[in-house]
Amino acid sequence: MDVLEAIRTRRSVRKYKPTPIPDDVLGRVLEAVRLAPSAKNFQPWKFILIRDPELKAKIASACVNQTFMAQAPVIVAACGLPEKSYAGMGRYMSSWPVDVTIAFEHLVLQAQAEGLGTCWIGAFYEEEVKALLGVPAAVRVLGLTPLGYPAESPAARPRKPLSEIISAEKF
Amino acid sequence: MDVLEAIRTRRSVRKYKPTPIPDDVLGRVLEAVRLAPSAKNFQPWKFILIRDPELKAKIASACVNQTFMAQAPVIVAACGLPEKSYAGMGRYMSSWPVDVTIAFEHLVLQAQAEGLGTCWIGAFYEEEVKALLGVPAAVRVLGLTPLGYPAESPAARPRKPLSEIISAEKF
Repeated sequence: MDVLEAIRTRRSVRKYKPTPIPDDVLGRVLEAVRLAPSAKNFQPWKFILIRDPELKAKIASACVNQTFMAQAPVIVAACGLPEKSYAGMGRYMSSWPVDVTIAFEHLVLQAQAEGLGTCWIGAFYEEEVKALLGVPAAVRVLGLTPLGYPAESPAARPRKPLSEIISAEKF
Repeated sequence: MDVLEAIRTRRSVRKYKPTPIPDDVLGRVLEAVRLAPSAKNFQPWKFILIRDPELKAKIASACVNQTFMAQAPVIVAACGLPEKSYAGMGRYMSSWPVDVTIAFEHLVLQAQAEGLGTCWIGAFYEEEVKALLGVPAAVRVLGLTPLGYPAESPAARPRKPLSEIISAEKF
């Protein structure tokens, strides 16, 4: 699937079929993560795949009870490694949120190209998720997503016109 | 171009032809930005297109003298609007770096699909860039990239194996 087609057709999917994800399909989705660029090529990330039904239910609960997440055969948790990232992005921030987001969005777009659904979860209790997954104190959880075949086809959400988000020469 | 092909073939390009970017090509690249998802669909971003040669040179200088940036017909500066973003991502961070990065990576991948090169610039003096572009105090500059037709074909950089970046059930 073309890049722009994947971007145009991607939706946040909140209903999933229990159908398992074939290994070759999952392999290409993870390859899209693996190939992501990062500041200084440090690749300061780790992605955890959760398939255990009980653990999926607990994770969904730690994501402010977004129970639909556990319908998907896999939940992915995207972690960032601040100590292994570039500290001086813009001379004011650590690169890890940027690095992990790039890899995460590669996952989202390749999933779309494979006919899989995702839903970027930003509403979660990080400390609870970390405890459930044994994530070390120095590591951050940036976000999570269910990954599986969609059981719904949501409509497109509205977007701002270009005139509001693009400018020339000055802000 | 397929999503995975765009991901596989993308490089950080540091030499550009002066060839202008046709309007329809640039239009599709900006459409990829415009359609990006964001926390609560707030779309807390603004992308500035810089074409003026003198301003491009000053921007390149503020990017720790990465003078190659000014070779490209356009430099893009990606800005985040913290005050218009979701404050509670993971219950600990503002969503704007994540939101802006998603839109920025859409630009990078669609540029690749169009035969254009990019180079995500994380090394820059934010205050200098903000002054040059008239960016308000409450707005952040997340990153910049030159955008134009490549005049070099860099080799792929190494990446960690899947075994180092993916785990099952636990970190």
